[in-house]
Amino acid sequence: MTNPIQDSVQPWQEIAAKKRQAEQSKIPPEWILPTSVVEGAKHRRSLTGPFLESLLDPKTSRITAMDVAALIQHMGSGTLTAVAVVRSFCKRAAMIHQLTRNMLEIGFDIALGRAKELDDYFHQHRRLVGPLHGIPMTLKDQFHIKGLETSMAFVGWIATFEGLRSTDKERNFESELVREFHLLGAVPIGKSPETSNNILGYLWNPHNQLLTAGGSSGGEAVMQALRGSAFGIGTDIGGSVSMPASYNGVFSLKPSTGRISMKGVAGVGQGQQVMPVVAGIMGVSIATLRAVLESLLSTEPWLRDPYAVPLPWREAEEYHADTHGSLAFGFMEHDGIVTPHPPVQRALKMVKITLREAGYNLVDWNPPSNRESLEIHGKIARGDGCVDVWDALQLSGEPEVPEIDGLFESGLPRKPLSLAEYQDVVIHMKDYRNRYQEYWMSTAEKSGTGRPVEAFISPVTPTAAHLPKQFFHAEYTTSINVLDYPAVVIPVTFVDQNLDKIDPSFVPLSETDRINMDAYDPAAYHGAPVAVQLVGQRLGEERLLSLAQIVVDALDKYKERAAVVSANK
Amino acid sequence: MTNPIQDSVQPWQEIAAKKRQAEQSKIPPEWILPTSVVEGAKHRRSLTGPFLESLLDPKTSRITAMDVAALIQHMGSGTLTAVAVVRSFCKRAAMIHQLTRNMLEIGFDIALGRAKELDDYFHQHRRLVGPLHGIPMTLKDQFHIKGLETSMAFVGWIATFEGLRSTDKERNFESELVREFHLLGAVPIGKSPETSNNILGYLWNPHNQLLTAGGSSGGEAVMQALRGSAFGIGTDIGGSVSMPASYNGVFSLKPSTGRISMKGVAGVGQGQQVMPVVAGIMGVSIATLRAVLESLLSTEPWLRDPYAVPLPWREAEEYHADTHGSLAFGFMEHDGIVTPHPPVQRALKMVKITLREAGYNLVDWNPPSNRESLEIHGKIARGDGCVDVWDALQLSGEPEVPEIDGLFESGLPRKPLSLAEYQDVVIHMKDYRNRYQEYWMSTAEKSGTGRPVEAFISPVTPTAAHLPKQFFHAEYTTSINVLDYPAVVIPVTFVDQNLDKIDPSFVPLSETDRINMDAYDPAAYHGAPVAVQLVGQRLGEERLLSLAQIVVDALDKYKERAAVVSANK
Repeated sequence: MTNPIQDSVQPWQEIAAKKRQAEQSKIPPEWILPTSVVEGAKHRRSLTGPFLESLLDPKTSRITAMDVAALIQHMGSGTLTAVAVVRSFCKRAAMIHQLTRNMLEIGFDIALGRAKELDDYFHQHRRLVGPLHGIPMTLKDQFHIKGLETSMAFVGWIATFEGLRSTDKERNFESELVREFHLLGAVPIGKSPETSNNILGYLWNPHNQLLTAGGSSGGEAVMQALRGSAFGIGTDIGGSVSMPASYNGVFSLKPSTGRISMKGVAGVGQGQQVMPVVAGIMGVSIATLRAVLESLLSTEPWLRDPYAVPLPWREAEEYHADTHGSLAFGFMEHDGIVTPHPPVQRALKMVKITLREAGYNLVDWNPPSNRESLEIHGKIARGDGCVDVWDALQLSGEPEVPEIDGLFESGLPRKPLSLAEYQDVVIHMKDYRNRYQEYWMSTAEKSGTGRPVEAFISPVTPTAAHLPKQFFHAEYTTSINVLDYPAVVIPVTFVDQNLDKIDPSFVPLSETDRINMDAYDPAAYHGAPVAVQLVGQRLGEERLLSLAQIVVDALDKYKERAAVVSANK
Repeated sequence: MTNPIQDSVQPWQEIAAKKRQAEQSKIPPEWILPTSVVEGAKHRRSLTGPFLESLLDPKTSRITAMDVAALIQHMGSGTLTAVAVVRSFCKRAAMIHQLTRNMLEIGFDIALGRAKELDDYFHQHRRLVGPLHGIPMTLKDQFHIKGLETSMAFVGWIATFEGLRSTDKERNFESELVREFHLLGAVPIGKSPETSNNILGYLWNPHNQLLTAGGSSGGEAVMQALRGSAFGIGTDIGGSVSMPASYNGVFSLKPSTGRISMKGVAGVGQGQQVMPVVAGIMGVSIATLRAVLESLLSTEPWLRDPYAVPLPWREAEEYHADTHGSLAFGFMEHDGIVTPHPPVQRALKMVKITLREAGYNLVDWNPPSNRESLEIHGKIARGDGCVDVWDALQLSGEPEVPEIDGLFESGLPRKPLSLAEYQDVVIHMKDYRNRYQEYWMSTAEKSGTGRPVEAFISPVTPTAAHLPKQFFHAEYTTSINVLDYPAVVIPVTFVDQNLDKIDPSFVPLSETDRINMDAYDPAAYHGAPVAVQLVGQRLGEERLLSLAQIVVDALDKYKERAAVVSANK
């Protein structure tokens, strides 16, 4: 089963172009945007809001504005069909792809076929097939879906199964997670790329096209920012879900290892099981993330995936603002290494004031340093020299994209660690986790609640999105992966060049700190989303999501009050 | 803080002898056995039953015959003090140690001090301090207890903290698990050695002193077989709890990773986190194992140990024979590689008849082969060349014991795997686990219950204990560690040379199969315990223990009936 579009003597550019065209050709002609619109959009600063809506018919606008709960309600009462819902999101996604190039695989036909099946089921049984019946979704192109390809944007993986030819698995294999979504009724409509790749190019931030969409799950974040699907699934080993969610102003959950199945998922570094890649969820609300995770757990993934933890959704772990009384949060404004840019500082301040006004206690968060996790993370994630990535690039001869050029040295994989060196890092990681957890438990002494803090708040990155290549410090998120804590990203505000000015009194702590702050440009960053992350105890996703809802509700009230004050001025 | 008994210029034999004497001297003079008894015992085949009882006073006999539930009941009602209980077990343990040399660390004084505290607490509050109040226990010498040393029987570790000097942690550090036991009220009375070591020598099987006690947690198994403590804690990475439990006729639970804390435990190969060593429980009944695990989980180990899974004891997961109706078990009589000896075959047959007569369905168990786990296990557990073991031996210059001489080559560690080779094994392990789990789930089609089998039964080893060095196939247990399933060992019967004869028609499948069967000698093995293991789903310890209780109850009924039939003949 070789694919006619690929031929080993073809230059990679040609293979990539053919792939791009093959997918583009799956968009129905009536959804193709005029060239003038596509070209014009490139010169816009933002693609969000009225601009995108102006390209849509009212029905598509109306349906794609609904969240999972509203969609389910409509389909359950029969006022919307799955076909209508899926078609609306496909149409919107098609527009988004033409404007941003964020779909590596387009699966509208398959999706509409499945939606028809779901409608037939509903017609016959008068009930939904599952809690995500007819919900259009997208995934990072790392999950296998029958009928679609999985290239992870490696040109050499096109027309292969994870780089291998004639395996009978090409376009014919399903990741465990995809199977679960099928059971639940969710309908994948396509797959998204890494932020920078040689097939589709660079993915810009739809809120501010001067900036990056963030990565690696940037395609999913853009899809959520522009509402091309009702939720998205990315992957994360060091912030690859949290960072793009933050940059695109959407909510995300990066769970602990073992909560969402990664069985049968493509990827590089599959032999690295010490700090595994996890699947994360993105969406427009905490309720969306909650609905998706609760639904997935109802399928009991641990019966099929030996690496899944047998923890069903535990409602008893959830907190509610009105019944749980006093709560305490750890609060990290700065990790002592790299200072967040002014808009991130302002977002943190907003959250701080909000939580204080809501009556919650805040504890300064001074855990074992991110300097340690920095060292651990790099050695665990890339200690093998990233040979898999290098091999994948060699298949087609494509060059590495600038975002990963540091992975290799003189075009070759770096020398891998010895097993002994690697195991020393694992020991350091264990020790770091132990000390971090001990620190967390020690906050019972100053939380004011008698318990350790429920969760802690910190920047996601020091930046609110960033200009290409202007990223110098990933440790606010890599530390969370080293620790295997779950993290929820909460959008807070947008960069405002009038509020988020350069601080002339800033004194850098180090060269990296200086370079990072020098990269901040209020005018260039204006309009970019700013978020914080809320980090919870390992495998405590239920509690963390409930706490995130409490924070979001408090923030909404704070913003309402601020708006009233501002209007009365 | 250097210890006067150790000096680097001393020959290791002298250091070992001094250590041996230092511990021996902690036994109160009134508990010292006459030399004639100790020497005479060496020539006995068995140390169990009337022989040991004849050395004890009636009160000690009576108290040490009680299990955890009975002891707790007596202490809770005030009819026994913790001091009386602890003293009785210490006395019995002292006798056992003199007869078997199974205590590397003796902590009677510390234990009696703690028992006094517990009695004071009870006197003052009229309630027990916790669910294991005053229960005397022992641990393999890998767990740190304040006031005792941890040498793991490495001569070079004597008077150090895990091989390091002047750390301030020597005799002054506590493993997380030990802390939990302290909270629960359990009282450690000492620590036991690996089965073969240069400090105490070889540990023989108390049921049949021609045979080994099994390893590596042999000291604990001997203690349970002779009831020197109410329960014991061993460690297991490839059968090191299950095998000695089986050889000594006691029950054991080897849990999945993350169920019992291994935080702050000494050990070699600490950087190997892909298939970690787990702590297992040994005792004289399933009820004992259940009480210990349930108690430990009540302390919420996951709050303190980042590698512990946040799963409390789940009563709803337990099965009960009368309420759960039809059950199905997988049944493996032979792994297709090495044939169990005749007594093991007979024990399996007893279990098979028992379960069939009780109305349970049995499904032939044909999962992915133990040949695969054999290859995976060795490379994961010893892929680093066991440098840590070698280093520990170099500290004193002691030779490796014969049981581990295969670890090294010409006296030096073997060449370690490269990180790439190691990660390939991890990928193989993932794949093996996936296929094994898929196989398990597929048994729903033939179980007769509509569900996959609840657990499966297999030999623990192909032997009922074994003559020294006559062990050729560990894969009935190593496979379980590769798969991270929990396993319970259930004693079934004893070798009977009149029933378990050599099968003249035996045709070996391979050279290993032949060598293994050739090593069977009915006369030499006569009297050795024979057990089976029951293996459950990952992290499903509650259900597994409840199923084990069902099997044990059925076996007891079967034996009663058989006794009646035999008496009526």
